[in-house]
Order: sequence, then structure tokens, then C-alpha cells
Amino acid sequence: MTGVVGTEEATAAAGDGSAAGVTAARGFRAAGVAAGIKASGALDLALVVNDGPAAAAAGVFTANRVKAAPVLWSQQVLRGGVVHAVVLNSGGANACTGAPGFQDTHATAEHAARVLSGAPAGVEVGAGEVAVCSTGLIGERLPMDSLLRGVETAAGELSGNGGGPAARAIMTTDTRPKTTVVAGGGGSDAGGGWCVGGMAKGAGMLAPGLATMLVVLTTDAVADAATLDTALREATRVSFDRVDSDGCMSTNDTVLLLASGASGIAPEQAELTAAVTAACHDLAAALLADAEGSTKDIAIEVTGAASEADALEVGRTVARNNLVKTALFGNDPNWGRIIAAVGTTDAAFEADRVDVAVNGVWVCRGGCAAEDRSTVDLTGRAVTITVDLHAGGHEATIWTNDLSLAYVHENSAYSS
Amino acid sequence: MTGVVGTEEATAAAGDGSAAGVTAARGFRAAGVAAGIKASGALDLALVVNDGPAAAAAGVFTANRVKAAPVLWSQQVLRGGVVHAVVLNSGGANACTGAPGFQDTHATAEHAARVLSGAPAGVEVGAGEVAVCSTGLIGERLPMDSLLRGVETAAGELSGNGGGPAARAIMTTDTRPKTTVVAGGGGSDAGGGWCVGGMAKGAGMLAPGLATMLVVLTTDAVADAATLDTALREATRVSFDRVDSDGCMSTNDTVLLLASGASGIAPEQAELTAAVTAACHDLAAALLADAEGSTKDIAIEVTGAASEADALEVGRTVARNNLVKTALFGNDPNWGRIIAAVGTTDAAFEADRVDVAVNGVWVCRGGCAAEDRSTVDLTGRAVTITVDLHAGGHEATIWTNDLSLAYVHENSAYSS
Repeated sequence: MTGVVGTEEATAAAGDGSAAGVTAARGFRAAGVAAGIKASGALDLALVVNDGPAAAAAGVFTANRVKAAPVLWSQQVLRGGVVHAVVLNSGGANACTGAPGFQDTHATAEHAARVLSGAPAGVEVGAGEVAVCSTGLIGERLPMDSLLRGVETAAGELSGNGGGPAARAIMTTDTRPKTTVVAGGGGSDAGGGWCVGGMAKGAGMLAPGLATMLVVLTTDAVADAATLDTALREATRVSFDRVDSDGCMSTNDTVLLLASGASGIAPEQAELTAAVTAACHDLAAALLADAEGSTKDIAIEVTGAASEADALEVGRTVARNNLVKTALFGNDPNWGRIIAAVGTTDAAFEADRVDVAVNGVWVCRGGCAAEDRSTVDLTGRAVTITVDLHAGGHEATIWTNDLSLAYVHENSAYSS
Repeated sequence: MTGVVGTEEATAAAGDGSAAGVTAARGFRAAGVAAGIKASGALDLALVVNDGPAAAAAGVFTANRVKAAPVLWSQQVLRGGVVHAVVLNSGGANACTGAPGFQDTHATAEHAARVLSGAPAGVEVGAGEVAVCSTGLIGERLPMDSLLRGVETAAGELSGNGGGPAARAIMTTDTRPKTTVVAGGGGSDAGGGWCVGGMAKGAGMLAPGLATMLVVLTTDAVADAATLDTALREATRVSFDRVDSDGCMSTNDTVLLLASGASGIAPEQAELTAAVTAACHDLAAALLADAEGSTKDIAIEVTGAASEADALEVGRTVARNNLVKTALFGNDPNWGRIIAAVGTTDAAFEADRVDVAVNGVWVCRGGCAAEDRSTVDLTGRAVTITVDLHAGGHEATIWTNDLSLAYVHENSAYSS
């Protein structure tokens, strides 16, 4: 059992915006600074450092075949299973920048390694143990002078309370920082002596300029890279992988999990997976809630599927259907558009056996009109669509947003 | 060789809106009437009759597994290869209406057959030789009393000049009727003594309520059902099948081709296919130009593909990417979004070899920024995106529209 003990909402209630996030777990320091990458002068560079005693890590990356330079770099780093530090910048994706862009990422890691190795109380860090994440517009080089100076500034500001500024430094069009803390193990409120903290930015692939989903998770649990990898893959499979805000896949998506071992506690695989999964679910919900221009958080529950793959295909297809998304923006429980979307999938089902509910009202049964659609209440932000395929015992949920006027406005006005 | 000799634009120039459309070919009569299916009192029922001497026909239908009753019915009819008449209604899709909805379609065909067989100069028509098409909201039964009376009224108004009213009667949110006439054979302006006429409604699958693409093509050429089928499948494969306005597939899409043989001329298969293809391209362009809320007609040309399938996958994926579509609405030549969409496909390509042009300016070469994007002129309605995969010798073009504020507005405000 795990419990979410701190979320952005809790932080906002506290009024100081300083959620611990990646520094909730012992053994981590972080900082967020204004390096001058963003023209606005806002925070744009974050540094997360694992002071150990261990430095095991795992990562998952975008499946896009057009991968940004920092993704190509960090994939190499993660192959070693050791990460001492992560440099993250907003203000530029460093994607489609060719060999020079990759050199920029390499230089960033080299510089961070040098600065951190020389810092007071610093650990010896190799460039191959520094992950790099970038987010922003595709196709432009980063201002490397500003960025490298920013790494130095951030190294000087590293602190055990730096999770808040770090979360703010990776924002692009996010309206608020996103952090989480999940107590690990034991089932008690106090947790089992270790925790998982994290920060995220982006809104799946919804935000303009393909703004990237970047997530850094930290834990003071004792776990080797393989254990972390298993936990992270299972957690992202059922959380971030099932958020499909606008169907667009970024070139930069990165989710990292770093373990310091500072708690001295080595949870079972299942315990660790549960805590990481809870942290990912919490951050995924925060991404959806802040998705650009969205007015609805929509859960598409597919039940009665012949396989989990069928359930996911149906959920994803409904989530990506612009006519369904615009109908929900208009508070219209248009089940005809939903069942027409289901009909375009290869999932096992008979058209005359499908049931559809919108916020609990079964507006369609057996492929035909059923309960009165005027009784569906769509005034709130939360919407649940249930599709029962009556073809088996599997189920899955995909989370998405509506397609609003504001989405089109924001995504047509950006980057020109 | 074939030439488009009449289009909606030409008709509009003529000022009378009475394009011959389906009655351009000899042997066909048509009518469009207000049957009272639409609450507005607008024209909502069309009847097209083939007076022969022949009555061969072919049809293609939506690939959606949730098929409207008239699609299920007309698929059966077309299996016989003989169609004497087509009844088309707007104001209701008769989809997801179960067995009663199918009975309604059956009754419509029975009624039309009875009325036409009894009419002066009428031919003997069986219900199994009457195709039915419907378009409008999913999930509601049709007002059958009004519809059947409308069939009688339409039968009484059948005329060799009825193509114009028929094209208007199948409109839903279309802002103008869509007709075409293509002279067949010979290469001369006068044509070879036969022609292909046609009418269409809808905007691919873009219009609200999944408004359906319905197309009826007629020819006075002599051709058997198999020849027509070959011509129609090849024509739709390279025209309507490559229009992907908003990626949403309807439950009702139907394209029919009827041949009267009244010209007495039997063109070669290739000649017929060319004329039918030209007619389909003409109507497809008219659908795109009238797509709901659209401000751009976008051709996505994919070249250098390892196969035609690869070219189509890449074109379709770019066409369905909401971030590309909103960028073009905002006149933003955002090639980063284009190449990121390409990266989500399984097509053969290397990310560092892809070139992208927007309206002829190669803004991306080898996966990186190239010519100055500020020189791209996106002020007009026509946009051409070229993606060169450098992976082979195949190519294909997909046509789509932008994603505009008006699209969201119209599709969120409908049907509630």
C-alpha cells in the first residue's frame, strides 16, 4: 500500500509553492534558475543531483523515431544504470538540430560533471552519468553560453529544498508546477521510512510546439537499476502511456527514476512498483488537469474487452476522435460519435452488443439509443465514458482532454 | 483523356445553381424535394432514377464496422449489380437504430419500387434494385410517414434537369451543392459521346454529427457491373480514400456508380476509369473546399517512399496531427510538428535524411532547419506540404484541412 501524501493541490493550499517534489526523498538536492534561455527571464534551467550513497537509475523515452539530441544522449547514459545528476532546460527542445545539437547536449553533460565534481561536498561525476532533458521549440539550437553559465549558477544553489524551484524551471506553457510525494511501504500514514518524490512538466503531447512531457522521479529506497527499471516500466505503462491528451507524440518525452538509497531500506519490488505507480498516476492527473485549453478531464473506461490490447485500442481511438472531443467541449453526450469511433478499430466486438455510458447514464445499449441523453450531467470538469464491448473480461482506461476553442487558439498562435 | 467540363464553380458562374450533375448523362432523371424530415423545411429527399436501357451499378461503402441501416441494405442491393433507383435523405443517418431502423430502410426501398413501377413511363423496379442513402444525426429513427410521402412527391417531379435540386436535397451542413460533369473519351472538348456526372455531399468525415459523405455518379456509357466496379474502386482509391479532413470515419459513407448505357458507346476500361476518377477528384476537391470551418485546403505530398503504403501512412499521419493542423490555421510553417508526426509512423526512413517543404520552401533538409521559414507564404487557402523520405521511388498525396476555431465551434454546438 502507498499513499499520496503531497500533491500540487496540497502545496497550493499551503500557499508557498515549495512542494518538496524531487527533494522529498533523502539524498537529493535540486535548484531552478533563470539562465536566460527564455526571453521572458523566467526560470528555465533545473539541476537535480543524487548525493547517494547509491546512484542507480532507470528511464523511459519517447517512442518517436525523430528523437531530440537530449533523448539520444540520455538513452546512452541510462544504459549504464547510473545517474548522478540531471540537467533540464525549458526554452528549447534541441530536436532536429543534427550533430551540432548532439554536441550541445554532450557539452552540457560534460560541463555539469566538471562543475559538480569540483563543488564543495561534490561527488566525482562523469559526463556519462549526467542525463539531459530539454523542452521547447523544435529545430533551433540552444544558447549554449547562457545554458552553461546557468548550470554553474544552479550548482551553487543546490539545496534539499530545491524541488519547488526545479519544478518551476521546467515549465513551458504549464500554468503551475507539478510535484508529488508518495510515502512508500507499510500502509501507515507515516509510510515505511522511504518515499518517492517527483516533478513533471507538459501536458502529454498537447501543449504547443509539441511541448514535451519531462518527469524526474526520485526515491531514497535502496534499489538497483534493474529493480528501478521494472518499477518504472510498469508504472509508466499504466499511467503516462495511457494519457492521450491530443494524440501527438513528442520528440523529447523523458521519464527518469533515480534512487539514492539514503533511507537504507530496500523495499520489495512490488512495494516499490506500487509507490512509483502512485507517483506517476498523481503527476499524470496533474498534467491532464493543466492541459492546454482543456475544459474537461475525460476517462475512457473500456470494459468487456477480449484483451487488454483491445481495450487500449478502443480507448485510444475514442480519445483521439476530434468529433468526440469537440462534442464533450460542447457538453453534448453524443454517443453516436463514440460508437462510430469504436467502429473504426480492429477490436473484437459486435456492433449490436456495444453499450456506452456517459457519466453513468447508459445512453446506448446494444448499439442503439437507450437511457435519456438529456439526463447526462456534463457541467463539471470530470467526464467518464464507459464502453462495454461485451466481448471478454479485460479492461483498461485511457485519459484525455476535450478539444476546445482555446486549444486551437493557443496552438495556432505559438512559434510564429 | 478526359476533361472536367462542368463544376460547381462553373454552375455558380452561370447563376442558376442548376448544374446537371447526376442528370448530365442520358438515361437519368432526378428530383429533390422537401419531405419534412428536416425541421427547417429545406430540401431533404433526393431520388435518382436510371431509365436505362441498362441498369448496371457498382458501389463502395464505409469501412466502419458500425454501419448504418441504409449501408447494410445498399451493400446487399449492390451485390446484385443492378440499381434502378437511389433514394437519399438528409436530416437523419438511420445509424445505430437496430432492426427497426433496417426495416425503415427496407420499407423505403419497397415504397420507391412500388411508386416507380406504377409511374407513367416507369420501369418495372424491384425493391432489391433500389439503393438507399441517409445522412444526419446518429441514433434516431427517421420520420417514415414524411419520408415515404416524400418519395411519392419526388417520383412525380423526376426530370432530366433534376440533378440540381437532388444535389441540394442531400446537403446537411454543406454551404453549397456539389456536382460535376466529365466528358468521356476521345480527348476532344466535345468528348466521345458519353459522360460521367455526379453529385456529392459532406466534407469527408469532417462535418458535425459525423455528417456522411454521399456520392452518386451516373454515366450513359455502356458498361457491365464488373467494369463499373473496377472503375469505381480505382477512382475512389486515389480520390475519396485520400481525403482525410479530420480523421473521423462515418457510419454512412456511400459512393454509387450507375450506368444507363443510353449513349450506346462502350468505352475501354481505362477510358471509363479515367473519367470516373476525374469526376471523383472533382467532387473530392469540392468537399475539401467546403469542409466545416476550414480555412485551408492542404495537400500532403509524400515522395521518396519505399512503397505507396508507406507514402500513404506518412501522409495520413501528418494529415491527422492536430498540432500540424492548428499551426497551418495560424499560418505557421511549423516543420518541427510535421517531422515529429512523420516520426510516429512505421514507414521506412532515416530521421536525418528527411526533407520537408511548405509551399515550395524547403524549411527542413536532412532533418534540420534549412531555408528561411519566414519566406513561406501561407496567406492563401491552398497549402502544399512535401515530405521527401529519401527511402525509395514511391509517392502519394493525402488531402486535408486545417483545424480552426470554427471547426471546434461548429462541432461542439451541434446536436445538443
